[in-house]
This record gives sequence, C-alpha cells and structure tokens, in this order.
Amino acid sequence: MSTDYKEKDIVISSRVRLARNIKDLPFAAMIQEEDSKKAIKLVEGALNNQDQSMPSFNKVEVKDLNTNEKRMLVEKHLASKEWSKNDEAAVFIRKDENVSIMVNEEDHIRIQCILDSFQLRRAFDIANEIDDILEEKIRYAFDDKYGYLTACPSNVGTGMRASVMIHLPSLTLGNQMNDLIQTLARFGITIRGIYGEGSQSLGDLYQISNQITLGLNEETIIRNLHSVIKEIIKRERNVRNEMLINNRIYLEDKVFRALGILENARTITVEESMKLISLIRLGTDLEIIEQDISEINRLILSIQPGILSHTYGIPITNKLDNTRAEHIRKILGKNNT
Amino acid sequence: MSTDYKEKDIVISSRVRLARNIKDLPFAAMIQEEDSKKAIKLVEGALNNQDQSMPSFNKVEVKDLNTNEKRMLVEKHLASKEWSKNDEAAVFIRKDENVSIMVNEEDHIRIQCILDSFQLRRAFDIANEIDDILEEKIRYAFDDKYGYLTACPSNVGTGMRASVMIHLPSLTLGNQMNDLIQTLARFGITIRGIYGEGSQSLGDLYQISNQITLGLNEETIIRNLHSVIKEIIKRERNVRNEMLINNRIYLEDKVFRALGILENARTITVEESMKLISLIRLGTDLEIIEQDISEINRLILSIQPGILSHTYGIPITNKLDNTRAEHIRKILGKNNT
Repeated sequence: MSTDYKEKDIVISSRVRLARNIKDLPFAAMIQEEDSKKAIKLVEGALNNQDQSMPSFNKVEVKDLNTNEKRMLVEKHLASKEWSKNDEAAVFIRKDENVSIMVNEEDHIRIQCILDSFQLRRAFDIANEIDDILEEKIRYAFDDKYGYLTACPSNVGTGMRASVMIHLPSLTLGNQMNDLIQTLARFGITIRGIYGEGSQSLGDLYQISNQITLGLNEETIIRNLHSVIKEIIKRERNVRNEMLINNRIYLEDKVFRALGILENARTITVEESMKLISLIRLGTDLEIIEQDISEINRLILSIQPGILSHTYGIPITNKLDNTRAEHIRKILGKNNT
Repeated sequence: MSTDYKEKDIVISSRVRLARNIKDLPFAAMIQEEDSKKAIKLVEGALNNQDQSMPSFNKVEVKDLNTNEKRMLVEKHLASKEWSKNDEAAVFIRKDENVSIMVNEEDHIRIQCILDSFQLRRAFDIANEIDDILEEKIRYAFDDKYGYLTACPSNVGTGMRASVMIHLPSLTLGNQMNDLIQTLARFGITIRGIYGEGSQSLGDLYQISNQITLGLNEETIIRNLHSVIKEIIKRERNVRNEMLINNRIYLEDKVFRALGILENARTITVEESMKLISLIRLGTDLEIIEQDISEINRLILSIQPGILSHTYGIPITNKLDNTRAEHIRKILGKNNT
C-alpha cells in the first residue's frame, strides 16, 4: 500500500483531515470572540515552534479577505465554505499548499493534508506530523473511551476523514454510479460531488471518503478506504476497456470533439469546461490523445471562478467565461508544443 | 446586372431551367415506352448536331443506375428525384457539369444550367444556347397565345424557372426568414430548402426562385429575381454586421467551435455537418476565420450521402458518418496549409 502514482490518471488527489478541539475552550458553536482569538494564537505559537527545516505557514484570516479571495481558498480545497462564513476564523497554509490548518471552523482545529494522485497513506503521515507539532503546545479535548471529542458526533473518535478525488467518467457514462454509491454506503463509505457535501458531480469527479470515525483506528480506516478505491479503479478501468473495444469510434469522437471545443471556444462556463476536460482526461488515459495529466489537473483548478478571477484580476461576471476560454486555449496550446 | 462574383460568399450557385415538350408526342404522364425512347433519340440527335467546338454531353439512363448513382445525380442537382423514379428517363450531362438535359421527367425535356455564385444572367444565356441547339432539330409544343406548353400549368409560358442557392445564416439566426418568405410570395418568388420542393433548410441554405412563368418574358423574370436577391443579400449583410458589432464574442465562439468540431469529429451526420459548415461560411465572410469559400462549397456537395458513398466506394450505413468525418478533416486540413 505505498504510493500508487501510476493511478494518477484516475485518482486526482488524496486528502486526510483531522478534527481537533482545544481543552478548556468552549466548542466553536458557543465560543466568544476572545476565545476564538486565543485558539488562533495557540495554533500560531505551536507552528512557530516547529523545526526550522520544515516549510513555514502563512496565516490568513477571514476578516481580511474579500469574497473572491474566500472563494479561491474554497476552490483550492484549502478551506471550507463554512469556514469562510465565520469572521473569527483563520487558516494557516503551508507554503507548498499541501497542508492547511483551519481554526474556528466547526471544530477549533482542522488539520488537512492534500496531495496529488493516490497517496492516502502519505497524506495521513503528513497530517499526523502536523498533529504532533500542535500537540506539543496544545492540550486537545480527548476522552479515554471515545477518543478525540468533536463538535459533530460523526467525527468523534479518530476525528479523521480520509478521502480521494476520483475521476469516473466511464462508470458515470455507464449509469453505474448509483449502484456504487449504495454498495459503498454499506461499508461506511460515501461518494459526493467535488465541492463537498451535497454538491453535484462536476466533470465526473467524485469525492470518496470514510464515514465512520469511531471504533476503528486510523490505520484500519486508511487501509479499508485504500482497498475500496483500488476496487473502484479496477471497475472504472474495466468499463473503459469494454467501451474501447465495443465502441471505439464513439469514444474517440467524444474525446476529439471535447478537445476541438476547448481549443476553439471563445466563451465557456465552468460546468461545460469540466465536462469536456473530463473527456480529455479519459482520452489521455485510453491513449486516444496525448496530454500532460498533471497539467490537466492544474487546469481543473485554475478555471474555477474564484481562482480564475484572482489570476486575471477581473470580477466574476459573464465576461469571466470569455477569460476562461482564453485561459484554456493558452494552457492546451502550451501542452501541445 | 453582370456577374456578381463578389457575392459568392452568400450566393452559392445560380440556376436556370427551361421546360420543353415535343410536338406530336403524348405528354410524359401518358407516354408509352416507344415514344419515351423516341424523345431520348431526338435529343441525342440534336446534341450530336451541335458545333464540335462545344463541350460534349454524356448520356445517362435511369435504368442503368443503381440507387446510389441516382442519389448522387440528385445531390449534384444534375437530375431530380422524380426523374430518378422513371426507368424510361435519361439525362444528358455536359462534361463541365454546368448543363444537364433531363428527358422524360415531368416534361419531355428540361434544360438546366447551373453555375457557381451569383451568375443568373449567364446561366440564362447558356440555357438559351442549348435551347436553340435542340430547337434546330426538334419541334416544340408551342402556342402563340400561351407560349411553351408544359405538363404542369405553373410552367406554361416561358417554361423557365430561375433560382439561386443562397446562404442566409444571420437572417435565420435572427428569425427573419418567415417574414421574408411571406414578403417574397407577394412578388411571385418562393424560398425553399436546398433539395427542392418541401425539403427542409439544411445549413441555412435556401433556394429562391421565380414562381410565375406566364405573362412575363424571360428577361423581366431574370431582372426581377436578380434585384430581389440583391436586396436579400443586403439584408443578410446588415444583420451580420449588427451581430458583429453587438455580439462579436458570441459569433466568434459559434464559428470557432464549429471549426473545432469539424476538425476533430470522428463521426458526423450530414445534418450536423451542414449546420457547422454554415457557420464556417459565415465566419469566413466576417473574416473571423480564413477558409477558401469555393473549397467549402465543394465540401457541402461532397459530404452528401450519395456522393460520399460513391467517392469512397462504401454503402450508405451509419459507418458513412465516420467516413464523412474523416473526409471533412482531410479537406479542412488541406485548406489550412
């Protein structure tokens, strides 16, 4: 169960999040301004204490951000929508953007590590290291029987949520997602769209995560999720190969048209872009076309409204669709040379 | 009113057809096999008598053609669908394919001249020359009061129908076609889809022709139609320019997406191809993209099922859509270098 880098065409990213609360402070729902500030200070102090050889963190406070900047952090999965609604909240973002620590979201502290491709285990190890650094200076709310105490009972225990962002165009095209969702639910595993709870699947991208945090240790959760994901990857690959054998022209047509539109459109919404980029990823995996998958994954992020608006310094209006089309043409053009 | 070659981006072709019947033979609806053969022989004899310096004609008989070959002649506008249903019918096609003479269609003889772009007057002159050649050897059914007698009363008089094939994407997009059809009807002019009576408009292409053949001489009919077409071209250009000013990105997006799909599709129907090629023609005229309009006009013909099937020697099945996509990519690729 080491790094499965070769799965990067199907698994886009792996994420582990640990929910922690500070002993002797009221939980986030009841907390007053002063204690919120104290929580931020405590985390900041602990991070300043970390080994100088480690990458440093930037502190970002909700109150200092405009709507676009908040949106951008959410699109980058560095902070959550709930977080962005609390003016007392802050996030510490590591320079490499692999680690972020939200303070004063639903829990006092949410440590998150997000890595490219299928690297659940490594993401867990990194989140754990950060947890240890914080624990040197902060006393966590912990119960010997239940484990880490959290605002929402669904997080009590390990306080851990592990997830991968996965690209399942063939299972989607083959109407197999509903079956899969029901099967996985029986194993305590959920599938959602890419921007969290209740969000729709965009571009056949899904978040698959453990639902149960109590009664299992972290190692077991990671191992279970890892083998489930392996199985889903196998299914997705089977359907892809079947389609390639039975319906090659149909697939080629879909992939090349998607490329043709992305390379030529003068205005395009984020929804359509995601749908077409999904086909580009599929076509690359099936060797119908050649594209740099890491570049395509960065493209998915860079066309999100907040990030795009920030990059080009223009507001989120209909005109952003024109900028998006231009941006995509630039990236795909670069990719081709 | 000379050749308007500069209008070739809007007017694709100009056509003049003369309906004639042979005195002393029963009209086509009543004719027996022997007289049908006689009609063919008479036309053949007259054509053999023409000046040796003129391009020669090939005789093609319906009974010698398979379904595909018949279809191809119809798609090339060298013969009509009704013609292809009569096993006693023949067509004489001039080597340059500008002139064809159907024998035993609705009338005994239908002389047709079809030329590229807006050249109504020249098409009329050529049809007239052929008419004179035939008249040297054949006695037409002619009435001093009514003029040329024809099977259908709507053709009595000059027996002439003049028409242009015209590309009106902006008037179509702007929902102005119904108004135009009603206005023109008052002037005895009809608008139809490109494959004759009752056929739907494909790719925003229309056939505009005179409806009245009685009571006006040929010169007047041609002159009237010419000035009406001029007016329609002006309207189409006005709407194009308005769209360009008010909605440039929208137009550019449509045109470039069409190009992207045509350059990339692996399977495509004739209907979709026509729709997209229509946008390519529009984009070329508006200088959004650069394409050779004559090449694009040839492309429209070459993707029709019968012609395509004949060119590549494969039957008309769903697979022909794959061949069409390949053919379009080849032509557009060539056009780009």
